[in-house]
Amino acid sequence: MGILFSFEGIDGAGKTTQVALLADALSGRGHKVTCLREPGGTALGEKIRSLLLDKSDEPPVPVAELLLFAAARAQIVATRVKPALERGEIVILDRFTDATFAYQGFGRGLPLEQILSVEAIAAGIEPARTWFLDLTPEQSARRREARGEASDRMESEADGFRSKVRDGYLERAKRHPERIAVVDASASLESIHERILADALGILAA
Amino acid sequence: MGILFSFEGIDGAGKTTQVALLADALSGRGHKVTCLREPGGTALGEKIRSLLLDKSDEPPVPVAELLLFAAARAQIVATRVKPALERGEIVILDRFTDATFAYQGFGRGLPLEQILSVEAIAAGIEPARTWFLDLTPEQSARRREARGEASDRMESEADGFRSKVRDGYLERAKRHPERIAVVDASASLESIHERILADALGILAA
Repeated sequence: MGILFSFEGIDGAGKTTQVALLADALSGRGHKVTCLREPGGTALGEKIRSLLLDKSDEPPVPVAELLLFAAARAQIVATRVKPALERGEIVILDRFTDATFAYQGFGRGLPLEQILSVEAIAAGIEPARTWFLDLTPEQSARRREARGEASDRMESEADGFRSKVRDGYLERAKRHPERIAVVDASASLESIHERILADALGILAA
Repeated sequence: MGILFSFEGIDGAGKTTQVALLADALSGRGHKVTCLREPGGTALGEKIRSLLLDKSDEPPVPVAELLLFAAARAQIVATRVKPALERGEIVILDRFTDATFAYQGFGRGLPLEQILSVEAIAAGIEPARTWFLDLTPEQSARRREARGEASDRMESEADGFRSKVRDGYLERAKRHPERIAVVDASASLESIHERILADALGILAA
């Protein structure tokens, strides 16, 4: 069996960069690495992603949003994640179930028991380690502004939303202290990467 | 508050026709009637419908299918069904939660507790009456053949699948005898319509 890792964080936290740095470092050490992002990563997931990010006249209601993310997750777990783990590979996910807890639970205010029940149905597996790249909403706003990013429906949510999502991630980390490592995302890319790589290598050596 | 009715049955059972006949009869008596079909009926639902019915290289895994239907349902309930009921209208659904129990539970073999848990999250309301138009898989095959129907991904399932779905509907009717009326769909359109209309008028008069 392979090893499952995941990265979490609000937008601008540097997930994409850290996923790439970790994947390169592990590949360079001879590991076979598969990187996947939610809700895409499968043909079905990419279609669901476009439904979710579309700025349409009638956006999905919060429960529909929860179930759409869950459908994409069920597909990626069954057709990509589990097969890769069975081949002994390292799988790195750019967001997973913790994101649902944070975004739909704390961000949208859906009952947490609904979130956990859907999570058990859709995922059914847990990462060996999750790095939550923690950034304040103010830092996130500054970074996105500096990048001049065009925003989709999710990213154009107000900072108040982002702040609730961050609270959700921190609560989740409190509930799963053995799995979720909270990483200060305002540090330098290199120092964050070194810390994460050391952590990953420790888990792989165990 | 309005009244919610639903029709259930395997393809070829005559749901579409009976929905139209009932809607016409009730409209003719001065009721405001809204007919909706699942998983469509909303812009989001129609997109989900096309994801579900597409003959693609990688069809949704059974759990993803369950969650996609549920997402479409959550959307239609929140944005169409509940508002119409609050306006005092009659809402007639062409398939609802019983279909999920029959198709995903019995047809695909998903655990029934998963089905019921997703149902509670997505729907949260129950029809006042459901007519299950019961047809054997053999009768269904003959009707579809006579119509020369092109089949989508769901409808091209084997008769063995259809037979399991029918068993699911019959089990569901046994669990909810007060709500689900099993109607012999091999009878004439007119006699089925008369029986259903009498039933509906009885409920509206109660």
